[in-house]
Amino acid sequence: MRATVINGPKDIRVEEVPDPRIHRPGDAVVRVTHACICGSDLWAYRGVAARQPGQRIGHEFMGVVEEVGAEVRGLRAGDRVVAPFVWADGVCEFCAEGLYTSCPHGGFWGQPGSDGGQGEAVRVPFADATLVRVPSDTPAELLPAVMTLADVMGTGHHAALAARVRPGSTVAVVGDGAVGLCGVLAARRLGAERIVILGRHENRTAIARGFGATDVVPERGEAAVAAVRELTGGAGVHAVLEAVGTQESMETAISIARDGGAIGYVGVPHGGSAGVDIGQMFGRNLALGGGVAPVRGYLPELLADVLAGRLDPSPVFDLTIGLDGVPGGYAAMDERRAIKPLIVL
Amino acid sequence: MRATVINGPKDIRVEEVPDPRIHRPGDAVVRVTHACICGSDLWAYRGVAARQPGQRIGHEFMGVVEEVGAEVRGLRAGDRVVAPFVWADGVCEFCAEGLYTSCPHGGFWGQPGSDGGQGEAVRVPFADATLVRVPSDTPAELLPAVMTLADVMGTGHHAALAARVRPGSTVAVVGDGAVGLCGVLAARRLGAERIVILGRHENRTAIARGFGATDVVPERGEAAVAAVRELTGGAGVHAVLEAVGTQESMETAISIARDGGAIGYVGVPHGGSAGVDIGQMFGRNLALGGGVAPVRGYLPELLADVLAGRLDPSPVFDLTIGLDGVPGGYAAMDERRAIKPLIVL
Repeated sequence: MRATVINGPKDIRVEEVPDPRIHRPGDAVVRVTHACICGSDLWAYRGVAARQPGQRIGHEFMGVVEEVGAEVRGLRAGDRVVAPFVWADGVCEFCAEGLYTSCPHGGFWGQPGSDGGQGEAVRVPFADATLVRVPSDTPAELLPAVMTLADVMGTGHHAALAARVRPGSTVAVVGDGAVGLCGVLAARRLGAERIVILGRHENRTAIARGFGATDVVPERGEAAVAAVRELTGGAGVHAVLEAVGTQESMETAISIARDGGAIGYVGVPHGGSAGVDIGQMFGRNLALGGGVAPVRGYLPELLADVLAGRLDPSPVFDLTIGLDGVPGGYAAMDERRAIKPLIVL
Repeated sequence: MRATVINGPKDIRVEEVPDPRIHRPGDAVVRVTHACICGSDLWAYRGVAARQPGQRIGHEFMGVVEEVGAEVRGLRAGDRVVAPFVWADGVCEFCAEGLYTSCPHGGFWGQPGSDGGQGEAVRVPFADATLVRVPSDTPAELLPAVMTLADVMGTGHHAALAARVRPGSTVAVVGDGAVGLCGVLAARRLGAERIVILGRHENRTAIARGFGATDVVPERGEAAVAAVRELTGGAGVHAVLEAVGTQESMETAISIARDGGAIGYVGVPHGGSAGVDIGQMFGRNLALGGGVAPVRGYLPELLADVLAGRLDPSPVFDLTIGLDGVPGGYAAMDERRAIKPLIVL
């Protein structure tokens, strides 16, 4: 089959690789119909996150089950499925708590020895636990929205939960990338009354407004902090969704939180990592929560909303490409010509 | 009247100061019957936290109302009361949320211009909102336990709530000072099943065992992390109460938390402050909460438990002194000859 591999910084290719096969009786092979490129893939693309030359890449995909192992009970060939961005065994103590991302038998698509999502097919370990079935009668026009549940929408939802968004909350979202935009949508879904997006790309903040943002703050750093404080009568916001992952963005997030508020961090730390000074938080009783989103746990609930027409994150896809277009998709995303490319196979 | 003043590092004196008087119609004057010395007072004593020469000190006290201003409605002369370690107006948006420590009209006993708790009397602003009445028939032997609710027990409770202790939780408490010990008691009160105390002072860990600690880890740093992981089958604990406030203690706290767990931080940051690297927390979905405890909100609930005989934090007081003994009490605490001195006037 053909799949995307990363050979080094800015060297993404679509190459012939071995076809996936059932290795273990709990495996399934999924023929990919949709995939996408994640902001976190760019850290590998830019050489900030190390990858082995020739490693697969892509951790968001959906498709149709092609073959299942002897022990797979809940799936059969022909089922349409969406995968969370990590696989998990579904039975360990962490999976039982909903923390699928900490499963000791889990893994990340594209890690050495596994298939990546940006390819024609994927071998899926623990298929019963990992994959979520999408009804066969799902209209084709809803599939891009379903695709977002593999990572970006689930991650925005994780940030909103960690930031303790509740009905009536005042919320700020730091970052206008696809995760930040989905964070806006998640905050609105949880009942936020006012949602401030911090971002300066007009095409993105326009989507944020469509998703429910009530205010846009294009400033950065101290000017952004001043702007959010002015919008909130000086007090700051109850909930901050941090969807960037840099030192500067984390400092902004802490500075715009209202005393007693919470910051949901889902921006993958990079660029020297993001440090937090407890001294800045202590007197204000700020809380921090988040991390890598256990989207498997959120999938059923969010899928139900997508299928019912109550949730549509698909506007984050502003570029649709085929598998051959993946290298160009990385370049477009890296150069901010695209928010998030959807790959249709 | 006589009150404790701090003139400089290790220079604590009991001196004659002006008698407190009603300044505003919401004030009360409280004649102090009990006070104590807090671990955080030691940072001023040691010169780590700056104080103006001659500034008052002490933020924990209880006593009897001597006089009330014209607008005080719920208190009268003769009422026995306990004060939280900050005053607050009780009507602002933060007080309404229970975050009394963020009240814009609030303040900290002993701040310039205010009386400190370690003296014969205190002028209390916003007396109706700040003070909590203690029933007049409270047996004298319960008063030391009531005294802990001004700060140390409420702070331990805040840590336990922020660390999300719930029935069945496995908990670790970093620090065997009076706050850490109260954290043990708070965790047990909230239903923790297993409570590991990290501390190496046998007189303190003995109290911790009496408060409900099931395991004692005397090691520090990496050895402590290894010991807690061994006690918990490798996974770490659901809830960590961080009651020290140094970089090392925060790192230990993060390292012993179970994936998906929470750290309740109440150790006042000092000694270069405590930094947290989000990169250490991201993949493990760790949460952080806490800060300066809004003990006013916890006082009624904890007081009810003390009066009912269900809660007795008084063993943290291992030294009882009079007002003249306060300078010696600081020295004893600083030299670790005392866990926490109780001052009886």
